[in-house]
Amino acid sequence: MDLKSKFRHIADFPKEGIDFIDITTVLNDKDAFKEAIDSMASLIDLSRCDVVVASEARGFILGAALAYKLGVRFVPVRKPGKLPYKTIKGSYELEYGTDSLEMHVDAINKGDKVVLVDDLIATGGTMGCVADMVKEMGGTVDKAVFLVELEELPGRKIIEDKGIEVISVVKI
Amino acid sequence: MDLKSKFRHIADFPKEGIDFIDITTVLNDKDAFKEAIDSMASLIDLSRCDVVVASEARGFILGAALAYKLGVRFVPVRKPGKLPYKTIKGSYELEYGTDSLEMHVDAINKGDKVVLVDDLIATGGTMGCVADMVKEMGGTVDKAVFLVELEELPGRKIIEDKGIEVISVVKI
Repeated sequence: MDLKSKFRHIADFPKEGIDFIDITTVLNDKDAFKEAIDSMASLIDLSRCDVVVASEARGFILGAALAYKLGVRFVPVRKPGKLPYKTIKGSYELEYGTDSLEMHVDAINKGDKVVLVDDLIATGGTMGCVADMVKEMGGTVDKAVFLVELEELPGRKIIEDKGIEVISVVKI
Repeated sequence: MDLKSKFRHIADFPKEGIDFIDITTVLNDKDAFKEAIDSMASLIDLSRCDVVVASEARGFILGAALAYKLGVRFVPVRKPGKLPYKTIKGSYELEYGTDSLEMHVDAINKGDKVVLVDDLIATGGTMGCVADMVKEMGGTVDKAVFLVELEELPGRKIIEDKGIEVISVVKI
């Protein structure tokens, strides 16, 4: 299947000049959805994956389906104030200002082999922040897996500079 | 497995007097996560399910894993302004005021057999709103499946009054 052709491009969303990659057209095609998850799963070595970590909201869709497929744990990363138990917080830079994410303090065990998952890698800011939180809790992060990589943007280098392998199914 | 014992109860979250049911402890236990998804899947008749519809953010986790397991399409329902393409909007009542949700206008085809999924049914407000949007697009909704049902709250009746069967894996 030509998975790349299944994404919808939305001009000027969320702001002028951005060509937004809409993954909902992939999710809403049962064969494309299955191929997307199976392709991501095939890139992960189960002996090096105890847990999938993904951030809200689109990351939850791919991360949870992938964790289920692999038979491993799933840990959600959320925006501040959304997780009910005690949390640790991480911050990352935006174009203007910073933003924060939280994980439960007991989400990752020391020595856990963690695979990070998201729908798309662009600037790498979110994922870099998640990687730092996982390491703070004692987890090791070998690999980050994305459905889509925007090759023009610097996300890959930001993540690789943290010693994490970056893998993507579709490059745009 | 005693799945019910795997949930964490958080007192006074998000506000005083609420006993919040934390599902992250289920997701973060590979056997409990698998049992949760498999139990939900066993309640769904594939001949009456073309697509799983779930709302952000926790609904995405269970809905996407379930859609993958069943081999059907997945449609996300989001808060206003998050979906990039043209949307329809639905509203529901809160304790004070109203809130809104959106779906892509082309998410559901006329005649689609839709199963609604969420982590928890409490007041039924969100799910009732989603059911109305699906019907507006020409889908039929036979069934809503939840991981947890809070039996003290009126959600089941709100959904059943729309002619939709309500099924839950764990009752608390």
